[in-house]
Amino acid sequence: MNGIVRRPVIEVTGRSRTHRMDVLAEERALAIRVEGHDVAVTLRTPGHDRELALGFLAGEGLIARAADVAAIEMRDGACADEPDLLEIALASGVRFDWSRLERHFAATAACGLCGRAHLDALRAGLTPLASGPTIDVARLLTLADRVRAMQVGFEATGGLHAAVICDAALEPRVLREDVGRHNAVDKVCGWLLEHAGYGAGEGLLWVSGRAGAELVLKCARARIPVMAAVGAPSSLAVELAEAAGLTLIGFLRDGRMNSYTGEGRLSG
Amino acid sequence: MNGIVRRPVIEVTGRSRTHRMDVLAEERALAIRVEGHDVAVTLRTPGHDRELALGFLAGEGLIARAADVAAIEMRDGACADEPDLLEIALASGVRFDWSRLERHFAATAACGLCGRAHLDALRAGLTPLASGPTIDVARLLTLADRVRAMQVGFEATGGLHAAVICDAALEPRVLREDVGRHNAVDKVCGWLLEHAGYGAGEGLLWVSGRAGAELVLKCARARIPVMAAVGAPSSLAVELAEAAGLTLIGFLRDGRMNSYTGEGRLSG
Repeated sequence: MNGIVRRPVIEVTGRSRTHRMDVLAEERALAIRVEGHDVAVTLRTPGHDRELALGFLAGEGLIARAADVAAIEMRDGACADEPDLLEIALASGVRFDWSRLERHFAATAACGLCGRAHLDALRAGLTPLASGPTIDVARLLTLADRVRAMQVGFEATGGLHAAVICDAALEPRVLREDVGRHNAVDKVCGWLLEHAGYGAGEGLLWVSGRAGAELVLKCARARIPVMAAVGAPSSLAVELAEAAGLTLIGFLRDGRMNSYTGEGRLSG
Repeated sequence: MNGIVRRPVIEVTGRSRTHRMDVLAEERALAIRVEGHDVAVTLRTPGHDRELALGFLAGEGLIARAADVAAIEMRDGACADEPDLLEIALASGVRFDWSRLERHFAATAACGLCGRAHLDALRAGLTPLASGPTIDVARLLTLADRVRAMQVGFEATGGLHAAVICDAALEPRVLREDVGRHNAVDKVCGWLLEHAGYGAGEGLLWVSGRAGAELVLKCARARIPVMAAVGAPSSLAVELAEAAGLTLIGFLRDGRMNSYTGEGRLSG
């Protein structure tokens, strides 16, 4: 299985100690370079790196469609300390707003805002989604169980987040797992971009953890009208979802959920 | 209570819908500026921002003690879109390595590596911890239950991560909660810095979630010899813990745990 690593562990229960092999989620650095410019270094679970890069660039508003990218070349790092490298060549005529990227980098460091300077810059270019289409609540309440069976990496390691994109009938189309929840969302958004669904204004994004502000922004930029999280949303996630016209669902588990914004899309 | 926000929610169970007020974890942007230079913007839960800034700067290796900072001034953002701002003045004579900071920023964007360019830069200046002191395993196995009672923000919202620093006898000294798990760790490390325990080479860092590579690095830089996580470690977290001479514990819950590195410190 990709994305996992075996490693010896000592299991301690009371006074008993058992030496065995454990299965860990793999975490490795990936550098993303566009036309020779370093754009990002992320700690991610290897696999679906092309999708990760496409989804990340689209989420930042730097590309709008898969065709904006002419070629992607992967080079694995030579040793554990060297990041893997994804070199991206843009299609001719694609205007990549480097100044915007540099502005993003100017005031960045801690985890959280992750490479973007201010919230107003984040929201730039985001027009609110129109109301509709509706989704079936009874079907949505069964989603957690249906998705859990697909989380094979989490099942093996306990250490992987997941993101899923569902179609309008709430059928899962793609699931990706990663040590970073932002990466998992970038991967499914990259998949959507490659399958011409990015920006289509339908379907649902499901995330295995909490709903933070940045995940809501990635969802809004992909024009996915509904985001559903197993965990809690933050105050800012709710504010941004409202501003973007998204339906934001939290605590979707055990046959129940909370709807924080956009309840007009809930039918049944 | 600080760090929480009330907000209307529709609770959906089967076909029933209940309108009520929910309690959300607060998330707001905080900009950290040192001597007029923008250093970081993070999405954090307001409260203990001074500790957050100190712990963040120390974790980056940019300051070494609380006395390196002469003054910290807080300005709340004027509106929801404007980040709160923490202005930091350094003590006279403190050498702040701006070039290092800029190198960090040069190749950064996605969540994960968070403002640092490469792993070798991350590890720079980290000398491995010597073996010892030992900790009592039976006492460690009871820690999860003791800490759970302290997580009042999580109890209220379901949306806050926590970090705790324990003394050598595994008594919790400080707990901080935040929507960002890196922020929670920065806050307790900042507390440690202000209480002269940063770099002392004793105690334990407990985190409510998974053990990722960056949390291990923050722990190593604070010279805390043991890190214990409720969730799974990643492969890179284990590699870095081994290189740093840390004891790394995962899945500490329900009276059991896994020890991945540094088992020489486990006694009893």
